[in-house]
Amino acid sequence: MDTIQSDGYQIFFEDSLTQLVNFIKEGKYSRSFVLTDENTAVHCLPLLQQYLAEADNFDIIEINAGEESKNLDFCIGVWKMLIDFGADRKALMINLGGGVVTDLGGFVASTYKRGIDFVQVPTTLLSQVDASVGGKTGVDLDSIKNIIGTFTQPKAVFMVADFFKTLPERQILSGLAEMLKHGLICDAAYWDKLKTSDLSLPAIELVHRSVEIKNEVVIEDPHEKGIRKALNFGHTVGHAVETYSMLNDSNPLTHGEAIAVGMVCEAWLSNKKVCLPDEQLAEIAEVFGKLYPKHSIADDCYPALFQLMQNDKKNQNGQINCTLLTSIGQYSIDNICTEQELCDSLRYYTTL
Amino acid sequence: MDTIQSDGYQIFFEDSLTQLVNFIKEGKYSRSFVLTDENTAVHCLPLLQQYLAEADNFDIIEINAGEESKNLDFCIGVWKMLIDFGADRKALMINLGGGVVTDLGGFVASTYKRGIDFVQVPTTLLSQVDASVGGKTGVDLDSIKNIIGTFTQPKAVFMVADFFKTLPERQILSGLAEMLKHGLICDAAYWDKLKTSDLSLPAIELVHRSVEIKNEVVIEDPHEKGIRKALNFGHTVGHAVETYSMLNDSNPLTHGEAIAVGMVCEAWLSNKKVCLPDEQLAEIAEVFGKLYPKHSIADDCYPALFQLMQNDKKNQNGQINCTLLTSIGQYSIDNICTEQELCDSLRYYTTL
Repeated sequence: MDTIQSDGYQIFFEDSLTQLVNFIKEGKYSRSFVLTDENTAVHCLPLLQQYLAEADNFDIIEINAGEESKNLDFCIGVWKMLIDFGADRKALMINLGGGVVTDLGGFVASTYKRGIDFVQVPTTLLSQVDASVGGKTGVDLDSIKNIIGTFTQPKAVFMVADFFKTLPERQILSGLAEMLKHGLICDAAYWDKLKTSDLSLPAIELVHRSVEIKNEVVIEDPHEKGIRKALNFGHTVGHAVETYSMLNDSNPLTHGEAIAVGMVCEAWLSNKKVCLPDEQLAEIAEVFGKLYPKHSIADDCYPALFQLMQNDKKNQNGQINCTLLTSIGQYSIDNICTEQELCDSLRYYTTL
Repeated sequence: MDTIQSDGYQIFFEDSLTQLVNFIKEGKYSRSFVLTDENTAVHCLPLLQQYLAEADNFDIIEINAGEESKNLDFCIGVWKMLIDFGADRKALMINLGGGVVTDLGGFVASTYKRGIDFVQVPTTLLSQVDASVGGKTGVDLDSIKNIIGTFTQPKAVFMVADFFKTLPERQILSGLAEMLKHGLICDAAYWDKLKTSDLSLPAIELVHRSVEIKNEVVIEDPHEKGIRKALNFGHTVGHAVETYSMLNDSNPLTHGEAIAVGMVCEAWLSNKKVCLPDEQLAEIAEVFGKLYPKHSIADDCYPALFQLMQNDKKNQNGQINCTLLTSIGQYSIDNICTEQELCDSLRYYTTL
């Protein structure tokens, strides 16, 4: 598999940890800091340490696992550890984890002493196909996802397929939702291939294709002014469902589970507003219905969900902006949706 | 006076508030937010409001005055207010204040929703000649100055000479130290002009020349890899003296007062290490001695001051790096100084 060239950095898929060691040696860094969470410290760090042992001095900084850690308190904790370790501007941060670690670690690095280099070693399927490309860093504030952050590219991304082989099924499904999205917005043939593949453990070639699609989109539009909005398909409704679930459910939805709900709702909106054919809507609903457990959304949650949609970073002038599909493999950006339409789309999902 | 073209933005010196109004109208912003502190809210905001009244809807966010506000708690407060006001990505932040407001406001804007536009309206002499150019944003953490921040350019800078006419003398002297530095590092004729001018209220033409010098330096080296280090003259010792004073003195030194001490010390180092002529060292010591009150530094502070110098962002590999002068108007970067040399330079200042 080819290395993918992104916006000023490379994404490695083969011999990635050897490549990481070479990268560190060539970079002449004063010191390396590996950011992990409790889980990756156990499941992924030992392998990384075997490789790093020959590369350089390094220190380990661990944060708690889970979205609840993705906040400014943890940033302050990591910044203070960097200060205590005497990290200078030639220090390197190696973010080893899922989206929380890569997003938070990227933000911490991009703002420590006005920016030190960082690389991403995404350990979940979701972070491999999503957080690894695009240069978005960030943390949550007041339960609003990624509201504080920067656009800063990593210096390299290293994909290690072995890391997600031990992931629980729900984590695989979470990443898979983004992969299915990549097919829906840009590549009908890839969508067809995913539909018929064994998705209990997606092949690294499929991951590679997803990264390729996302990379093409973000390279054309690094600051989300235009076509990058394609990637928001499913996310207007999906983010609201995800945040609502995080605030209210004892066992909250994963990102992918929420986005799967969002994609079905937004496929319905696509059918109503931009002529997605009926049979394609049915196909989308069927594929997600088979893969993902049904999530129940009571009518009386709609106002709260709508409120969350209004808080979305991507809105302007208080209007809610959706990316929709004109057909499978073709997106349409900047579709303004009303409260009524959005609630109807949730109703459609509920009645499936 | 000409408008100065900086790295992607303009710095206005004439009819600046009219220019600001035009800027806002042309930018089609969804809303404007004026960040002030207690002082600028009283002394500067009323004038700004007269102009803004015809431009747009705007809201005011006020923080406490003083360096103690330049921290992440205040950032969180401002971010939350932006969220509460429903600020979207097309919002504009107008930072009306001294360096604390422009640095903190720039950092908050550059990280809110991964970056909204901001403009600077610096109200002190120091922020006009220093913080207004260069794209440095940031806040302090654990008493370490500007340790968290970004390199982000404002969309424009508006200089209003009227604002600093009411500043206390110590604030004028604080800005003047940076102006004198600009002469020392790059322009001997400007240094000579400053020496012989009435400096109780520097003419706006002098401010313009200082901004021009700083602008030329930072445009060549936006990320402080090389020649921008010229601007660090006086700052290795000066920052340490400033931080130490802030932590220990009931009436701490201003930035400029501390940098004035630092410049005398580093002029002495320049004489010892890079052949700054004896008579130029004497001249520098005399000019600063006349303008600035003598600051007493006891011998037993030296270890703490040295510790602070080691924490400086600009160091690498634990070595202390100074920008020195080979003559007035000529700098020399990357001079490594030992603890002994740095302490001797403090001793020189003390014996003057």
